[in-house]
Amino acid sequence: MPYVNVKITREGGTTREQKAQVIKGVSELLRDVLGKPLGDTFVVINEVELEDWGVGGLPVQEYRKQVADKT
Amino acid sequence: MPYVNVKITREGGTTREQKAQVIKGVSELLRDVLGKPLGDTFVVINEVELEDWGVGGLPVQEYRKQVADKT
Amino acid sequence: MPYVNVKITREGGTTREQKAQVIKGVSELLRDVLGKPLGDTFVVINEVELEDWGVGGLPVQEYRKQVADKT
Amino acid sequence: MPYVNVKITREGGTTREQKAQVIKGVSELLRDVLGKPLGDTFVVINEVELEDWGVGGLPVQEYRKQVADKT
Amino acid sequence: MPYVNVKITREGGTTREQKAQVIKGVSELLRDVLGKPLGDTFVVINEVELEDWGVGGLPVQEYRKQVADKT
Amino acid sequence: MPYVNVKITREGGTTREQKAQVIKGVSELLRDVLGKPLGDTFVVINEVELEDWGVGGLPVQEYRKQVADKT
Repeated sequence: MPYVNVKITREGGTTREQKAQVIKGVSELLRDVLGKPLGDTFVVINEVELEDWGVGGLPVQEYRKQVADKT
Repeated sequence: MPYVNVKITREGGTTREQKAQVIKGVSELLRDVLGKPLGDTFVVINEVELEDWGVGGLPVQEYRKQVADKT
Repeated sequence: MPYVNVKITREGGTTREQKAQVIKGVSELLRDVLGKPLGDTFVVINEVELEDWGVGGLPVQEYRKQVADKT
Repeated sequence: MPYVNVKITREGGTTREQKAQVIKGVSELLRDVLGKPLGDTFVVINEVELEDWGVGGLPVQEYRKQVADKT
Repeated sequence: MPYVNVKITREGGTTREQKAQVIKGVSELLRDVLGKPLGDTFVVINEVELEDWGVGGLPVQEYRKQVADKT
Repeated sequence: MPYVNVKITREGGTTREQKAQVIKGVSELLRDVLGKPLGDTFVVINEVELEDWGVGGLPVQEYRKQVADKT
């Protein structure tokens, strides 16, 4: 009875096909590694706005700029 | 001090009244079964797009089609 | 395809029977209010240690003491 | 490796600057109290519609009205 | 910046190696499908006691018995 | 009505006092930045076993070794 929640930043270009591949890939992984039947796995994907995701103490866009400036 | 998160697929027709009933029902259940005061319970409802919910290794719409085709 | 997560403070006396009642009650509520088939609902209960739950800026035990002292 | 999820009601006026302050404040708190490096902390903010947040068995707007009426 | 939470029922036999495979598999999937750098992905696994997981309105053990009895 | 979930790796030395400081700090931050009353904020802390937390495609202990080996 697995439940998987995948949170990613919303970058604008994530397609239905990519989401379907994530759902398929995660469900098959749990079947192959842990023996969980495909039908028992729920996958929920959340796309999170860039301003709502922080890393390194900064909103992710500013964090990326900071990393880019350093390199 | 309960916190309850209810995730459902967004099917288009969920009304404010239904959400209010879910909030009321869950809060009363925790009061009646566990003795939690109504005022101590938070309920958060998330409606999830169909393409973001997977079951059986498929996005939920395709899963439903597959189940319907079998029967 | 609902997924419900119920977080409660671990008070020591929550029994299997109470948990089963919570699972049953939540699942039936979503069936009755939203038309979700019983078999489609996952419920996950988490009991959280008192020191890990905060309210009013305090761990819940200190918060309760503070409220009791006021009354 | 901390992950922090902040859920707040969507009141209409939360700005990017305020979100950036929340991200900064939480990340610095975990660094100062627990020694977690800033770069290791993810913060995800979710704004939740008022009709999707319940407290005291009621959607939050009705709960606030009820509290206001009492006082 | 993905964050993935994998909740599974605690069945007693999940090893460190299996968990490492889940972590690796999920992270590689998000890299391959969505282009997320491996280093940007957090995976958190939670094992949930059987009495704390409900499906079909029943704790999972009773649900399994019911399904087994039917077949 | 904020709800904050703080997930950290269980490193063995997190004390009640540190947790109380995290609860206090987060609740005061949301009061100061967003105007949320202290009494309206729930904070739930989860300590996650090292083998259950992955980063960079590896369990966190192996990830740390790999980083240490590189430097």
